[in-house]
Amino acid sequence: MPLQFNEFYDGNTGLTIGIKRLLFSKQTQYQLVEVYETESWGNLMVIDGMVMLSEKDEFVYHEMLTHVPLFTHPNPEAVLIIGGGDGGTAREVMKHPSVKKVDLVEIDESVVEASKRYLPEIGDFDNPKLQLHIQDGISFINTVSSTYDVILIDGSDPVGPAEGLFKKDFFESCYLALSAQGVLATQTETPWVDSYHLSIRNVYSYLNSVFKYTSMYLCYIPLYPSGMWSMMCASRSDDPAGEDVLKRSEEKVNKIEGLRYYNPGIHQSSFALPGFVSDLLSVDIGF
Amino acid sequence: MPLQFNEFYDGNTGLTIGIKRLLFSKQTQYQLVEVYETESWGNLMVIDGMVMLSEKDEFVYHEMLTHVPLFTHPNPEAVLIIGGGDGGTAREVMKHPSVKKVDLVEIDESVVEASKRYLPEIGDFDNPKLQLHIQDGISFINTVSSTYDVILIDGSDPVGPAEGLFKKDFFESCYLALSAQGVLATQTETPWVDSYHLSIRNVYSYLNSVFKYTSMYLCYIPLYPSGMWSMMCASRSDDPAGEDVLKRSEEKVNKIEGLRYYNPGIHQSSFALPGFVSDLLSVDIGF
Repeated sequence: MPLQFNEFYDGNTGLTIGIKRLLFSKQTQYQLVEVYETESWGNLMVIDGMVMLSEKDEFVYHEMLTHVPLFTHPNPEAVLIIGGGDGGTAREVMKHPSVKKVDLVEIDESVVEASKRYLPEIGDFDNPKLQLHIQDGISFINTVSSTYDVILIDGSDPVGPAEGLFKKDFFESCYLALSAQGVLATQTETPWVDSYHLSIRNVYSYLNSVFKYTSMYLCYIPLYPSGMWSMMCASRSDDPAGEDVLKRSEEKVNKIEGLRYYNPGIHQSSFALPGFVSDLLSVDIGF
Repeated sequence: MPLQFNEFYDGNTGLTIGIKRLLFSKQTQYQLVEVYETESWGNLMVIDGMVMLSEKDEFVYHEMLTHVPLFTHPNPEAVLIIGGGDGGTAREVMKHPSVKKVDLVEIDESVVEASKRYLPEIGDFDNPKLQLHIQDGISFINTVSSTYDVILIDGSDPVGPAEGLFKKDFFESCYLALSAQGVLATQTETPWVDSYHLSIRNVYSYLNSVFKYTSMYLCYIPLYPSGMWSMMCASRSDDPAGEDVLKRSEEKVNKIEGLRYYNPGIHQSSFALPGFVSDLLSVDIGF
């Protein structure tokens, strides 16, 4: 294995991935976008040195960021994705028969360009339901005139261009852009790394202050730091972990093709938090 | 970070842990036992180059290997642990008020020696309920005269001295050493690494052929390959994921001190498997 990609989290702990060759590398005005061909994980997208996704494990992140909130909404028709220029989240969203329109707002055209060329199985960019906007998600959400049933925030870590996607003003704008039964989901890092704790607590607190329901949920992503990744689902009307939503998932899940991670049992179980995680949110989660 | 410990799984993907210094190293007749002081994870035990545990993350493995099976048994009094020379599993077992006697059978005295000296917070070796046997677990189980309510198999990977702990004969011997409501749990590697699949399938098949109930469950262990670790719980009488067991956990969990991962919600949710994992077991898990 002459070539290795290394990502260190917490400064001292890291993941090493064996690399065959570099396929794409572009320093844009926002970030360094790279795609590598790996030994074991298919092609791998890396932004500013941080793993975004591999062809082998991307289904976990995209299924969990999508299907948990989409089944939380009783009838999602209009969906906004902020970030997600690889197209994987949009692909999962468009599997829901009720969805009529998806706005995908990616700040960096090079992410889309690299994905179309080197991760062609991930996106479904030619789907007529999808409209791609190369634009800053924060400016987009502040000028939006239509409303959305679901907003999915598919950004990278809270440093660099994605930093604003973890701020209170942004979540308030999202809330205003949602319909009456609107649902939002966002990725919120791993509870295992101490330096993420403030960001996790802040996002939970912001969402909790504006939405009726806010819950953290977890999934196993092998190429992200620690392998435990958290997301949050906030909802104006339906409890993401409630009986009604679970029943909806059980009734409709067979209409979603090609699921490899999400199922109704995973939906329910992903909201169960270990004590050291729920302590982080400083709330009694009811177990 | 001048010193690094590296463990590669699947030949190309690995974990790097920043090291302060080597504290213990002994090539025994069975294996190379090492303890390192790390930058971020406290002291770290490594056997034959594979991470066994760190002071910071050991609670996940030990709580999940212990409390899922111990709450599955209605009244566990006698418990056998095979492997587990670090003492962490025994520590968790002895938190259950019903437990009167624990036999800990570790093949390699150096594991116990290293743990007592460099991982002193993990074990509870002076507890009068604990009897330590430095012996091969396979020969122990074949000559055992008493019966156990719970058997916990706390071995390393299915190479080297732990190989026999993944074989059919061994599980049959365990079955015979269990009381009428007896429960067994064992660690079974990560579903993310293809080379473990045969071993996972075999263990599931062996247990399923002798026990009334056999279920895989999952937990997040950041220093194990991929961060997703599987265990299996097999039971002669009570369904480990059943309503009765969950109710028992809810009623009795407050008697267990110092839990940081396990709770009744985690107990239930850990049995929910993503599709790509349940496919591995080639069974319909009912979702």
